[in-house]
Amino acid sequence: MASSGSTATGPGSPCGACKFLRRKCAIDCIFAPYFSSEQGPARFAAIHKVFGASNVSKLLLHIPAHDRCEAVVTIAYEAQARIRDPVYGCVAHIFALQQQVECLQAQLMQVKAQLAQNGMNSNHINGTQY
Amino acid sequence: MASSGSTATGPGSPCGACKFLRRKCAIDCIFAPYFSSEQGPARFAAIHKVFGASNVSKLLLHIPAHDRCEAVVTIAYEAQARIRDPVYGCVAHIFALQQQVECLQAQLMQVKAQLAQNGMNSNHINGTQY
Repeated sequence: MASSGSTATGPGSPCGACKFLRRKCAIDCIFAPYFSSEQGPARFAAIHKVFGASNVSKLLLHIPAHDRCEAVVTIAYEAQARIRDPVYGCVAHIFALQQQVECLQAQLMQVKAQLAQNGMNSNHINGTQY
Repeated sequence: MASSGSTATGPGSPCGACKFLRRKCAIDCIFAPYFSSEQGPARFAAIHKVFGASNVSKLLLHIPAHDRCEAVVTIAYEAQARIRDPVYGCVAHIFALQQQVECLQAQLMQVKAQLAQNGMNSNHINGTQY
């Protein structure tokens, strides 16, 4: 998941969010640092559809400025995942990772048991031979 | 993540979502099967705050009826996670699981290497002893 980074918008041109919302972009627009005028509208479209511009604006206003970029990245990720998979959204990723963890834990237990068994066999062989 | 299950609302009493939104609950209310009159309002509050009632209603209407219960469960989970952690939301869980997967993969590789090494040592001992 790549960081969005701050993206400057040209003087007078609205940020990607305001361009999408077809509204005037205020000088202190909460979205401007995270949605460029070029790629921002497409990025914002998913966020707007899933969360709504007003909810995301309120959320960002309650987060310290230095954390907002990360928040936008995770919100955009959740929104895109919900559009791809309307039933599970990014929770599908959580389920897949939980299954992978269970599978790896089972494999690890099996290999550890084999290692312990080999150790016992080796001790037994060495015990009878020396 | 527990399934919400359908919860009947008494005749005339609004579902939990409509109770929270202080509106009349229609007979075909999209939220009624998933938000009981008693526990539903608290459950719906988080969803409303993060996604907005209108966005969730639209989302559910585009999902087959038999998938809506699962969708509500995952939406409620995402909403609660975003309220607990406004910056990362449930993506924090994804990051934690990804780290756990990496850690387990490293452990597994280490134990497998040890197993292979023990096998080579054992062959070497047996080779010199027989």
